Amino acid sequence: MSTDTLKKISKSPVTGVEYEIPELKDDKAGIDAFVAMHPAKKVVVVQGLGFVGSVMGLVVANALTEEYAVIGIDLPTPASYWKIRSINEGIFPVIASDPKIEEYYQNALKKKNYYATYDSYAYSKADVVVVDINLDVQKKSAANKDLEGYQVDLTPFKKAIEAIGSCCKEDVLVLVETTVPPGTSLKVVKPILQEALKSRGLSTDKIKVGHSYERVMPGPKYIDSIQNFYRVFAGTDEQSANAVEQFLRTVIRTDEYPLTKLGNTNATEMAKVLENSFRAMNIAFMVEWSRFAEEAGVDIYEVVKAIRMRPTHQNLMLPGLGVGGYCLTKDPLLASWARMNLFESDEKLGQSEKGVHINDKMPLYAFEYLQSQYKNSLDRKKVLLLGVSYLNDVGDTRYTPVEGFYDQLQLAGCEVALHDPHVKYWEEKDIWINQNLDELLMNDYDVVVITTGHKDYRNNETLLQKLVRKPAAFMYDTIGVWTSDEIKSLREKHVVKVIGRGDI
Amino acid sequence: MSTDTLKKISKSPVTGVEYEIPELKDDKAGIDAFVAMHPAKKVVVVQGLGFVGSVMGLVVANALTEEYAVIGIDLPTPASYWKIRSINEGIFPVIASDPKIEEYYQNALKKKNYYATYDSYAYSKADVVVVDINLDVQKKSAANKDLEGYQVDLTPFKKAIEAIGSCCKEDVLVLVETTVPPGTSLKVVKPILQEALKSRGLSTDKIKVGHSYERVMPGPKYIDSIQNFYRVFAGTDEQSANAVEQFLRTVIRTDEYPLTKLGNTNATEMAKVLENSFRAMNIAFMVEWSRFAEEAGVDIYEVVKAIRMRPTHQNLMLPGLGVGGYCLTKDPLLASWARMNLFESDEKLGQSEKGVHINDKMPLYAFEYLQSQYKNSLDRKKVLLLGVSYLNDVGDTRYTPVEGFYDQLQLAGCEVALHDPHVKYWEEKDIWINQNLDELLMNDYDVVVITTGHKDYRNNETLLQKLVRKPAAFMYDTIGVWTSDEIKSLREKHVVKVIGRGDI
Repeated sequence: MSTDTLKKISKSPVTGVEYEIPELKDDKAGIDAFVAMHPAKKVVVVQGLGFVGSVMGLVVANALTEEYAVIGIDLPTPASYWKIRSINEGIFPVIASDPKIEEYYQNALKKKNYYATYDSYAYSKADVVVVDINLDVQKKSAANKDLEGYQVDLTPFKKAIEAIGSCCKEDVLVLVETTVPPGTSLKVVKPILQEALKSRGLSTDKIKVGHSYERVMPGPKYIDSIQNFYRVFAGTDEQSANAVEQFLRTVIRTDEYPLTKLGNTNATEMAKVLENSFRAMNIAFMVEWSRFAEEAGVDIYEVVKAIRMRPTHQNLMLPGLGVGGYCLTKDPLLASWARMNLFESDEKLGQSEKGVHINDKMPLYAFEYLQSQYKNSLDRKKVLLLGVSYLNDVGDTRYTPVEGFYDQLQLAGCEVALHDPHVKYWEEKDIWINQNLDELLMNDYDVVVITTGHKDYRNNETLLQKLVRKPAAFMYDTIGVWTSDEIKSLREKHVVKVIGRGDI
Repeated sequence: MSTDTLKKISKSPVTGVEYEIPELKDDKAGIDAFVAMHPAKKVVVVQGLGFVGSVMGLVVANALTEEYAVIGIDLPTPASYWKIRSINEGIFPVIASDPKIEEYYQNALKKKNYYATYDSYAYSKADVVVVDINLDVQKKSAANKDLEGYQVDLTPFKKAIEAIGSCCKEDVLVLVETTVPPGTSLKVVKPILQEALKSRGLSTDKIKVGHSYERVMPGPKYIDSIQNFYRVFAGTDEQSANAVEQFLRTVIRTDEYPLTKLGNTNATEMAKVLENSFRAMNIAFMVEWSRFAEEAGVDIYEVVKAIRMRPTHQNLMLPGLGVGGYCLTKDPLLASWARMNLFESDEKLGQSEKGVHINDKMPLYAFEYLQSQYKNSLDRKKVLLLGVSYLNDVGDTRYTPVEGFYDQLQLAGCEVALHDPHVKYWEEKDIWINQNLDELLMNDYDVVVITTGHKDYRNNETLLQKLVRKPAAFMYDTIGVWTSDEIKSLREKHVVKVIGRGDI
């Protein structure tokens, strides 16, 4: 994937189609033609066509109380170019179980109000730019057992903001939705834009910069997680806050889900990473306790179920293979980094960082637990992993903990087969997944591991009977998918281990 | 309080009456007479007459589906002897805003089925012994800034169990409600009782030992927190579990609040400390974030309010003066201690311990924040603390964080005046509290601090006007009781600081 030849191809995991990335040239004609088709509409440019941006674009194209012309913009790279082509060719680049995705996309196709491009020229047409690009944290690799180091490099994010500044209107509203280190809108985004406007000889006091974080949840309620959910927002000044509010009211069902305005963008940026850090922390908290439960012969699942009866404890988490997805794995680190680097504090957010590190090590622990329970060498053993996605019933492999577990199995010399009903293509590993479980189960395995809690694996009597009939398999449930009865019937012929359930 | 002369007096903080502790003699006659009055009733002995035991005794004396004769037992010490006398003399030893307390107590007086004693002879009459004594953790003092060391000494707890074993029936049910290190019922309680029975020449396989933790919350729903709330229970074997279940069904409204049976007592013991550790952890989590909010000029209260709109985040805590009460301050340590000492793990529950240590240091931080903001020396300054209890609207001073804050003020040379509408007598400090706020406010102070979030201090326009009229006072809200508007009106004449609210 890293040679120059390969870099010119961008392959869609949705259709398998390979697009050749053209020599860089402008898309002025395409953009002008699109804008000309919508003379009376405000133009909204969504920067970033990932899990958030591509669907945010859909929601804006289907706004509630205003008609917008939407331009999605992303880079002409192997990872993204196909999305641009896909949107323009009538195939939405995200597979999701939410039927509203297709409905909204078909509607946008009919109205012809959602165009995609790679050319920054689009910003010159924008009344609103919604920033939905990634801001990543670089961590050490999962194969390396010392995971604690991390880096935050703002360079790509700053470049993206500079691209806006290089041609935007002087009174544009730039709405940052990206999860950023607290302080970013005020200390990074606004100064970059003002500097750019100044160097272009334009006014610097008409620009509006605000922050409002999304709470997008890919899955069956994908659209609703944007359009029908509470939003928090703030502006870098009063006119920015007003502009953000006005825009959000046109796209979000604010009558049912009232907006919450905070005092400044530091507060909204902090709220987002705080809420995700809270969740990451709650998971990390359970890691230690589930190990204690192992030692004390306690079934942590029944303990958690009992405690969850308290209204104040309903969000107690369960142990599992680890933590994945784009937010919980990095947001606490963004915050801690910001505290030290944007606010010059001497202290990091030590507990929140520690939470991430504990969670990062969960797949390693799950592997070590397998080793200790399996007892024999794993070399050349055939292993079937049920689940690749980090989340139940969704095909999302971003930072999936299955990766760290898979890497350890590979290092130990295992032959690993993978199944996931929701993942066709494991982008990060460049692996196409066999989605036919029946076919996979025709082979014999030494070890079968539940790695994602998909519905397909729960209360599935057919699957269970097939597993029961397998010869000499070691069954390992890292998620707690099997009920006590299921474990009993598996135990008649197999060794069965479940993290955190003792020897029930 | 520590000399021999003083030790012979036990003073009731409820009535102020001083009882002379008699020379130790038995109470056989009293117990026999009480039991003889209730020939058809089962005898339940409640061991420990503290915040849990005295009220548990009431609930059992007012059982739903059975009539019990209840004997409360405690030690003839200055801290406890008055409770024994008080119960027998018609004055319930707990002041509470819950009217059911008095109702249940009057009912028990009428039925004459609640007796109190200090004589272990009572255990010989018991069909059921409910263990509600304390099991404490020894920590370093708050005046010492290095708070991280702690010790768990099981000796007093073991002695109490030995007292039961020395005269109980061989088929008694011993129900432990005390929050204990996980493993205690199986590894400590049952072996001690069996050893005692064996040495008395009795059968060791008829005794029943179980664990079911209470979730008592002193305050307006005191009785309901025992009788109308979910219970988790387990037995050290099947006959014990059945006996516990049968007993609990007679005293708790299990039709509305079904019982949850867990696989073993390790699990129930773990559940209790886990749920309290979760809460302690959630508070500790917010400590770091509220300091970050300070640095970033963010009002953490508005951030938390915004995040709490998510159903999964409703139990996010707010910063404050610190954590008090009997549970959150020690339960995570009990668990961590048990992991290493009862289950020989190499690892402690590091995060949960850390959470307690962070919380323990909150009063010191609140003091240092005052120092940094007040700027002048605090020596000989007059300080008024509003609130002594650790909890809103309740008179409970056990491990109140106000103590650490108060100690620091004393060390700094302040003259400290105290107010609390719910605390007459601060037992741990041996201080009688002036409950007349008007009288206190006739004096001038250099610093006024909100230290407990009682209703009396919230939205109290009269109090606010009196504070506004005070000359040159420095106002300090450690809890976030004052609204933005109230802060503004105080700011007209005073310096006002609120932890975690930046400079709103």
